[in-house]
Amino acid sequence: MKVRFAERTGKVGRSFIREILKVTSRPDVISFAGGLPNPRFFPVAEMAEACARVFADDGAAALQYQESEGYPPLREYVAEHYRRSWGFEASPEDILITSGSQQALDLVGKVFIDKGARVILERPAYLGAIQAFGMYEPEFVHVPLEDDGMNGEALSAALSADGARLVYAVPNFQNPSGVTYSAARREAVATAVAASDAVLIEDDPYGEIRFAGEPLRPMRYWAGERTVMLGTFSKTVAPGLRIGWVWAARDIIERLIAAKQAADLHSDSLSQRALVRYLAHTDIAARLGRLRGAYRARKDAMLAAIREYCPPEVKCTEPLGGMFVWMTLPRGLSSLELFDKAIEAKVAFVPGTPFYVDGGGDDTMRLNFSNSDEDDIEEGISRLGKAMRAMGA
Amino acid sequence: MKVRFAERTGKVGRSFIREILKVTSRPDVISFAGGLPNPRFFPVAEMAEACARVFADDGAAALQYQESEGYPPLREYVAEHYRRSWGFEASPEDILITSGSQQALDLVGKVFIDKGARVILERPAYLGAIQAFGMYEPEFVHVPLEDDGMNGEALSAALSADGARLVYAVPNFQNPSGVTYSAARREAVATAVAASDAVLIEDDPYGEIRFAGEPLRPMRYWAGERTVMLGTFSKTVAPGLRIGWVWAARDIIERLIAAKQAADLHSDSLSQRALVRYLAHTDIAARLGRLRGAYRARKDAMLAAIREYCPPEVKCTEPLGGMFVWMTLPRGLSSLELFDKAIEAKVAFVPGTPFYVDGGGDDTMRLNFSNSDEDDIEEGISRLGKAMRAMGA
Repeated sequence: MKVRFAERTGKVGRSFIREILKVTSRPDVISFAGGLPNPRFFPVAEMAEACARVFADDGAAALQYQESEGYPPLREYVAEHYRRSWGFEASPEDILITSGSQQALDLVGKVFIDKGARVILERPAYLGAIQAFGMYEPEFVHVPLEDDGMNGEALSAALSADGARLVYAVPNFQNPSGVTYSAARREAVATAVAASDAVLIEDDPYGEIRFAGEPLRPMRYWAGERTVMLGTFSKTVAPGLRIGWVWAARDIIERLIAAKQAADLHSDSLSQRALVRYLAHTDIAARLGRLRGAYRARKDAMLAAIREYCPPEVKCTEPLGGMFVWMTLPRGLSSLELFDKAIEAKVAFVPGTPFYVDGGGDDTMRLNFSNSDEDDIEEGISRLGKAMRAMGA
Repeated sequence: MKVRFAERTGKVGRSFIREILKVTSRPDVISFAGGLPNPRFFPVAEMAEACARVFADDGAAALQYQESEGYPPLREYVAEHYRRSWGFEASPEDILITSGSQQALDLVGKVFIDKGARVILERPAYLGAIQAFGMYEPEFVHVPLEDDGMNGEALSAALSADGARLVYAVPNFQNPSGVTYSAARREAVATAVAASDAVLIEDDPYGEIRFAGEPLRPMRYWAGERTVMLGTFSKTVAPGLRIGWVWAARDIIERLIAAKQAADLHSDSLSQRALVRYLAHTDIAARLGRLRGAYRARKDAMLAAIREYCPPEVKCTEPLGGMFVWMTLPRGLSSLELFDKAIEAKVAFVPGTPFYVDGGGDDTMRLNFSNSDEDDIEEGISRLGKAMRAMGA
């Protein structure tokens, strides 16, 4: 049977990461491959109670179609979060609730990207954004990500080239690199985008999971209404609910709502309503405090184990928050080759190449620390160190 | 601020229907405008129990990321439905769970439609499909929908023209027209598509809500693996859960899964799991029997009221199932003008023009009967009849 698919389907495959998750889900494999929050900290009893409350309070309304924009009290919660945390003038009218941040990326792609339009990404870049945007067939432009954010000169050059439509950045504890933009770099990047015709997509899934130092202002502060902010409850509450959001200027939100209507009409009613009840009855600050402590302990355990078990030539980032450590292997070592050896030794990670749309990154790899406990982290890194040495590192 | 949007955003606006739902949601307006199932019949207590069961049984797993393909027992349930109802050889591997049928339409658009590709629609066509497909900038080709299905000659002509990529059809109680394809027309349409290079998108949201006569074979029977079947729990259980599905050949499903990953990673975990528990503990045949009886009574009430209160020159379809009656006004009467008068008289419907991508349909309109009770139906149609006569009908 000959079926003609759209050209875009040849360009975006199934996620390498989600595919290797299948290989690595065997119970005897210690996996640092996924990007999963630790289910030990999911508020199971509280969400069960919140769901019961929704059915008791709202009855059939919880199961009916609802507004594409999202459940109004949840939009207000998100707007209030921006007002309270940063003093932004955020209105619930400017918030769109999405089916996870991944859908926000898809809708942004749909609303901004014509075939061949230029989209500026960090190098390395978040794979979910590469996939979502890739469906709209842009020309990706990579700007090197340094220890304190995007390289300013490369960004300026990319912006001054004709027609850059979007600049996509994850300023806090970036996935995959763990890099955090400094205040100066935030200002420089945001100011450069604000002076261009491009729109800044500021994606902040991990901002609330900061281990050290004070939170830094979002780039929205400098780029203003030329910013589309993305956020999610996946890392702070639970990902299975699939609830994220977009905050943007009214004319952008209007287009995103039209795209949302065409994409899935609206996000799950029950989850949105349960989340609002949960947030109203929880000390979310205390919860985040516990989560930060738990993830920091795992990050510390991973860095200590790397120092103990890996060859000293191995380099890694020391993230201030989030869920990932980024590792650069000694010269000549391929993370793809290491992956096969590591699976034999029953430990898994994500090789770096899928995060580079222009090739390269073969000596890099991503390690997730949030979803393993300390003992497994030590054992897993020790297996990894042995696999590296067996390859001659 | 000048922001460059993708060209597609100029082509697809916010749904006229969803916008008028805002106008018509005032409590004193009797609305036949929405396409909503009747919340009176939502299984609220049962879904509450099913959610409690999910948290008790699955704990944190109910809140974690899960497979993009969907919750395995739900995929098996859908495959079994096709095996049991029609004797098809359907495997759970060939089922993708989507965030409602609307997302299935979006993913189909993403996977099949290049800009300018030809997509064949019924005339009038389901607005959600026009919106979802429209985002991928096809060239729409309209084929007249007659009392027993698509016009065969027009379909053949459209298929023989170069490069038709998709044929989209709703064979049971079509939205907006209420038309049901006859067995002969199903075979003719499916056979024509099977002999072409196009793919048949067979969308069946209402098939289980049949009031009269025996269910007729899906077109999949004749078009085989060149068919993409869409289904949903929105009409049989509840729409707020946002759970639909696609059944297609393996190579098509593989592309749809890649698109699903990029679109929202996966559909809500809790809703998928709760739905499986609900379906396992419910006599769904008995439930559907009650729903059919209740909707049939509303359809009968609407047709009786139309005969009593509307001018005799008004024509309408007599649907065998589903949720909609389609009305054609006496010559010279515009449904858009009638809409304004009707809103003044506190009754609402959807004017026909949004269902026509090539213009026309100004003398047609859609009336929903599922979401009103019999008294309101009689009162609403009587107001509508008065508005028609006030316009000189």
